[in-house]
Order: sequence, then structure tokens, then C-alpha cells
Amino acid sequence: MTNFPRRIEIREEGPREGFQIEPPGFTVAQRAELVEALAGTGLRQIQVASFVNPARVPQMADAPELFRAIRKRPGVRYTALWLNANGFQRAASVPEVDLEGSLYFYATDAFCRMNNNASAEAHAEAQREWVQRYHERGLPVETAYLMTAFGCNFEGEVPLPRLRQALQQMARVQDETSVRLQRVVLADTVGWANPESVRERVGLAREMFPDARIGLHLHDTRGLGLANAYAALKEGVDLFDSSVAGLGGCPFSGHVDHAAAGNICTEDLVFLCHELNIETGVDLERLVEAARLAQRIIGRRLNGRLMHSGSLAALRAAKNGSPTQETP
Amino acid sequence: MTNFPRRIEIREEGPREGFQIEPPGFTVAQRAELVEALAGTGLRQIQVASFVNPARVPQMADAPELFRAIRKRPGVRYTALWLNANGFQRAASVPEVDLEGSLYFYATDAFCRMNNNASAEAHAEAQREWVQRYHERGLPVETAYLMTAFGCNFEGEVPLPRLRQALQQMARVQDETSVRLQRVVLADTVGWANPESVRERVGLAREMFPDARIGLHLHDTRGLGLANAYAALKEGVDLFDSSVAGLGGCPFSGHVDHAAAGNICTEDLVFLCHELNIETGVDLERLVEAARLAQRIIGRRLNGRLMHSGSLAALRAAKNGSPTQETP
Repeated sequence: MTNFPRRIEIREEGPREGFQIEPPGFTVAQRAELVEALAGTGLRQIQVASFVNPARVPQMADAPELFRAIRKRPGVRYTALWLNANGFQRAASVPEVDLEGSLYFYATDAFCRMNNNASAEAHAEAQREWVQRYHERGLPVETAYLMTAFGCNFEGEVPLPRLRQALQQMARVQDETSVRLQRVVLADTVGWANPESVRERVGLAREMFPDARIGLHLHDTRGLGLANAYAALKEGVDLFDSSVAGLGGCPFSGHVDHAAAGNICTEDLVFLCHELNIETGVDLERLVEAARLAQRIIGRRLNGRLMHSGSLAALRAAKNGSPTQETP
Repeated sequence: MTNFPRRIEIREEGPREGFQIEPPGFTVAQRAELVEALAGTGLRQIQVASFVNPARVPQMADAPELFRAIRKRPGVRYTALWLNANGFQRAASVPEVDLEGSLYFYATDAFCRMNNNASAEAHAEAQREWVQRYHERGLPVETAYLMTAFGCNFEGEVPLPRLRQALQQMARVQDETSVRLQRVVLADTVGWANPESVRERVGLAREMFPDARIGLHLHDTRGLGLANAYAALKEGVDLFDSSVAGLGGCPFSGHVDHAAAGNICTEDLVFLCHELNIETGVDLERLVEAARLAQRIIGRRLNGRLMHSGSLAALRAAKNGSPTQETP
């Protein structure tokens, strides 16, 4: 017996996280092919693109065309990201987008200002307007993200009292609106988390939102992504964001080179879960193929591990390999 | 309070594990430079090369010259690997080699035959001769390795009873000689371990060798390397093998491409430990520089994470970065 969840829910972000940081030039057809491959693995939620300023993020300028080009699979949600009312309006005008109303809070001012030109507190206040905006469209608001919940490249470590303060801002918005959050997602936006800080901050979030599921958005920037995921699984966390092939991240944000790792890798996470007898609903072999498709499309070596080594399925089936070179 | 060890011991294997699987052609000067850089980080044991059949592993043919070329640092042990009496004799004839007498046992026959042309049981019996050989030279025998302790690409999963059997072979050699093992190292030779199997097998090894420290030799083949290390640290394991920049592994043993990961990455392991307030004695910034040196020498992108993203030290010191691109 273990204390792991029986199953987890994975929110796939590769198409959005990944192509957002790649140079422009990947076609709608290429990105649609990847989304369709992902939808064929059993993943039930795929973040396809973001509706953001096309002058700043030209890679996402064709988000409407991309949504329209995808041959959808029943039972899969094809979601999008936006940062302001304008982006939301644009996304809402594309019927193929499966809209969701999520709230965003920040644990550090500097990162919040960079994304939103507002302090963390002001941005938290503004979430009330988002509640209203979503409710006017009949969208339930059930999920809230807490960005830079562990550390921030501008402000450093996020001390626990600061995290508590940001979670209190989230709780106030919940208390003062008709929202009842079902999911609270802690985001390790720039890779500061470690397995023990994951445990303690999941605990803090649970203390403050006892009726919500706690989720994690983890990055593998410094190699601790799956160690952090394992620590979270042991705490019963059953909701994770991840990216096929480990796409995404912030390769230009203080990193040494463009090979810096991004989000935790979906297929490596699924492998971890299956090895721990945790269900994911995902066909791992098909997902590894989708990772290799992503690599062919993007044209450089991607950061996942399983995609280069293969899973254990074939080895378990064969149990009769041929000797290769000497391996002391 | 946590249950982590206060400090861990790391046995660096990059120069041997790494160059053993690279094509021949790296010079003694290049490899000596890497060894010297590693010795300057605080690492106290570095496996420099192996004394093996030069026809089969030409990359290691110049092991004697390499040992002689290294400018040694006091307090650091420069060790070697060998697989048979001939290799040991050659290593023993090079005064610069810091000899150690370790025993090797195998949990699967197929892997043992590939390396040693003998069944696991026969090879276990032969370890008695090794005890005698080492004692004749005045070398204490304090360490035993258990190879493919988790799984084997030829035989698949290693069931617990099979591991127990292999550990019993190890215990018999200890009982019937004057050896008292101080270290029992479980090796995940081809990347089959997961955090829960690590916990259970460390537990089994402790049960059977209550007076020994349990160590781990982990591979990051399928991305679980540091999750496995974290699980081990929580069990109080304080002895790890690892390779700078994640060098090493078995890229030709059933893997999809040559980008397959090898041993767990020393600097990523050190980072994990430092974030968990576990001492390593290693200067992480210097070690990251050594990893980048390894990459420059080898000439292709290596698999460590920290080497591409940088540690948190500079970010903690600065706490005053400049905004970069939008990061939703």
C-alpha cells in the first residue's frame, strides 16, 4: 500500500509552451499534426496556443487558424491562454477554443510586473473583474494559478510568508465572489522548487484551500522536475501540467544557453506514474511517438529522456535481448 | 527536521564512464584536464579510467599514461576499474592508481555472462578469489556492488526474491572470508529503477547487511535518476556514484538514439543535495564549470540540466534581474 493517488490528471501544454518560445515559422499544419497526435494518446486536455499580442509573440499570431485546422477528438479539451481582456475576447470569438475561466495570482511583484504591468496585489484585485467577465459568458471559474510560487529570478527565494500572503489574496477573491475554487495550481515558473519545498508549499496551499485539489506546474530547469513530481505524488497531488518532450520554459531568462530545460516532460512523467502503478489514461508508447514527432518538427534535440532511450515496454515483452558491448 | 543524511559521499565516475563510451581519439591531455578540474571541486574520489582489453575498448588503452599525466591533488583518490585478474595486474603496476578492492555480484545471469562469460552464481563464487588476490596485496575489501539490481535489458524486471538471492551470494562470500563489507552498492545499471523500487531494495539490502552503508549507482536513462536519488536520500542513503555532466551510460544497449542519458549527473545531484541542506563537500559552481569543460572536450551537447541553466547562486546573490521576454 502506498499513499499515491490512484490516478492523475495531466494538462498538456507542449503546443503552447513549446512553440511560444521557438522562433516563428512553424506552420499551422505542423502544429495541428502535433496536437492531433497528442489527442490520440489519451491526454484529455491540450493547451493549443495563446492569444497574445502578435507583435510581441508572432509565433502565436495564427492561433485562430490553428484551432480551426485541428481535427478534434471527442472527449478532449483544446484550450488556450490569454493575459488580458483583449486576448480573451479574441479567444472567445473562435468557436473551436474550449474556453476556461482561470485566475492568476503572483507571489512576486517583479515577475507580475513583467507579465502584467501591475503589482501582485493590484493584479490579484483585478481577478475579481475576471470572475465577472467569465461569469458573464457562462464560464465557471474553478481554477487558480499561483505563479512563481517557489522562487523568482528577479526577487530570489519566495519566503513562505510571502506565499501565504499571495494565497490569502486568492482566498479573498474567492470569499468576495461566488467562486468556489476546485483547483489551486502552484507554478514553479522558473525552476526554483525542490522536493521538500514542494511538500511544504503543497501543505500550505491545502491548509488554505481545504476543499480544492492542489496541482503543480513544474519546470525541469535544474533537473529536479521529476523528483519534485514524485514528492508531490507522495503528498497525494493528482494534477500536473507538463509538456511533451519537455518543450517550453524560459531559455532566455537568465540561462546559460538555449539547451536549458523547460516544463517537465509529459512522457517522462507518465512513465514515472506507470512505474508507480498510478494511472494516467495515457498510452505511453503513442506519447513517446508524439514526442519524437515534436522533435522532427522542431528540428533539434529535445530534452525528454524516454524519447531517446525508449520505455521499458518492449524490453519487458522481449526479455530476450542480444548481448551488446561490454558494460562494466 | 528531516530524515536526510547530514552529508553524502559522491564517487565521481565521469572520466571513466564517459570516455569509455565515446569514440576513441580524446587525448590524455584532454582527459587529464577534466580529471584535474573535477579534483578541484572538492570531489574526493574520481574514477579515472578502466584497465580492460584494449582491443575491445581502445578508448581506455592509454590508461597508464593518463594516470601518469594527472597532476594529483592531496586528499583525492584517483581510482580505476578492471574486470579480470589481467586488468588488475596492469592497474597494480601503475603506482599512480589508488587501488581499491571491490567485489561485484550480479542479479541476472544474462548481464553477467555478457560482462564476464560466467553465470551470476559462478561469478559470485569467483569473488572469493578476488578477496584473496586483494588481501595478498594488502588491499582491504570493503565494498561490494550488486549489478542490475533493479532490472536488466535481457531478463527484464529483477524480482525481489532474485535480488535477495544475489545478496545472499554476497553475504556468503562475506561470511566465508575475513571480509567485513562497509559499503553495499546497488547498481541500476540500465535504468530500470523507480523511487519506490529504490526504497524497497535499499530496505532489503539493509536487512541483509545491517552493518554496511548502502550506496546507489543510478542511471538517468528514463528520467528518473534524481527522483530515485531523492527517494534514497529520504531513506538515509549517503553514498552515490554519479558522472559529471551526466556522462556515461549504455547508449548502444537497446536505446533509440545516441542522446540517451547515462549516469545521474553529478552537478545536478549536488544541486539537489544543497537545496535539501545536505552537505557534499563540493563547490557547485566549480563543478558546473567542469561539466562545461567536459562538453567542450567532447564536442556535443551533454545531458546535465544545471550546466545549461545555471545554478541559483547568481540569482540569489543578484535578486535584481532585468525583465526579459514575456513569460505567461
